Amino acid sequence: MPDAPLLHRVRIVLCATSHPGNIGASARAMKTMGLGPLYLVSPHSFPAPEATALASNAADLLERAIVCDSLDEALTGTVFAAACTARSRDLPHAVLTPREVAVRLLRESVAGSVALVFGPEKTGLTSSEVSRCGAIAMIPTDPGCASLNLAAAVQIFAYELRQAAQLPESFPQEAYEPATYEDVEFFFNHLEQTLYDIRFLDPNQPKRLMRRLRRLFQRTRLEREEVNILRGILTAVQKVRSNS
Amino acid sequence: MPDAPLLHRVRIVLCATSHPGNIGASARAMKTMGLGPLYLVSPHSFPAPEATALASNAADLLERAIVCDSLDEALTGTVFAAACTARSRDLPHAVLTPREVAVRLLRESVAGSVALVFGPEKTGLTSSEVSRCGAIAMIPTDPGCASLNLAAAVQIFAYELRQAAQLPESFPQEAYEPATYEDVEFFFNHLEQTLYDIRFLDPNQPKRLMRRLRRLFQRTRLEREEVNILRGILTAVQKVRSNS
Repeated sequence: MPDAPLLHRVRIVLCATSHPGNIGASARAMKTMGLGPLYLVSPHSFPAPEATALASNAADLLERAIVCDSLDEALTGTVFAAACTARSRDLPHAVLTPREVAVRLLRESVAGSVALVFGPEKTGLTSSEVSRCGAIAMIPTDPGCASLNLAAAVQIFAYELRQAAQLPESFPQEAYEPATYEDVEFFFNHLEQTLYDIRFLDPNQPKRLMRRLRRLFQRTRLEREEVNILRGILTAVQKVRSNS
Repeated sequence: MPDAPLLHRVRIVLCATSHPGNIGASARAMKTMGLGPLYLVSPHSFPAPEATALASNAADLLERAIVCDSLDEALTGTVFAAACTARSRDLPHAVLTPREVAVRLLRESVAGSVALVFGPEKTGLTSSEVSRCGAIAMIPTDPGCASLNLAAAVQIFAYELRQAAQLPESFPQEAYEPATYEDVEFFFNHLEQTLYDIRFLDPNQPKRLMRRLRRLFQRTRLEREEVNILRGILTAVQKVRSNS
């Protein structure tokens, strides 16, 4: 436990989930963001083929899922829990956004396991379940349509937890080398000279058009190879011109 | 169009979606965040009962969905488009996070319609489709599991778009009035007096225990009614004490 990455200290607890497909899709959402483990309180149907199908490559999370008889059991051993809800409560704690609760959960997870608790699809968590948690989290939605799919809600919180953990992103390195300042300036000089050669530049106002062309190319953040291609084109143009 | 909220200028474009359920779930994801319209490029099956079922209360978005034969058609009239992809590309633009692309899309939408383009579930967008877009967006995922469900990806981008639009949140007002500084200080004085009365406070070190109790109650951000309840308890304790 002390060596587990902080994201693995966040239990995702699904209470009385009606549709096994939502359990599978939630597991997939967790897996894509590097989360675990999954706790299931009195699921209506689990294990279930539909859960496995929608879990995609998160089958291992389903296999390791801990099935409990009560929320108390699922929260045993945690030091902090947040309840996800889509509606106002009689006795609300302060309501946190997904971004805020993600930061809070990770901060509390330094001291031990924490939990993010989701209710059944139709009814959400009961007040009694909410009162077992130290915070309430709510996804800001369109006032006319507050009803997210359960797995979609899990996906947003899982995404924010990964953001909060500031893990190295799996973004690809950019494949191409950017052009340096000098590369680009050589290109602009070459372009200007070529436009003189083909008598395109107005000798009375050469700067105006060059400013427009600079603006165009500067905006694109040219790559080194692109500059070479463009200068190759300019050289070809100059050759045609000197042969004519 | 000029009066449409900026979020309604963001076309969500789903290309060659295989499973109609994903179209429905994507519409629901959009609806919860106040997005629209939905563009479908060559969907395998649409309209379809599974799409309608998973759209939940976003059926209107499906009914108004614009079905196109090509991505070109779906992007006609836009001033900026971003391609969502889960894998590295031969000729990548700079890759934006969901948060970054949401800000960019809304900024560009001031000038007209913009688009966020998603590929088919299995294969994603082709390089040719990506090359029709001005930016690439990628959801940071666990390196071992980059495969989000299509509607889950739409949900994350829709969520970030709503965040970027800084729309008024549908959070409930907190139902209870917070205690003021004076309320809380009266309570601490009352508590200290009561603890003296019942001879619980060490007369040699009264401050130490009070500091611990202050810490406990300060952390909870007491409400006015809670202070009244606590002081009621203290008064009851004092009465018992004076009657004994």
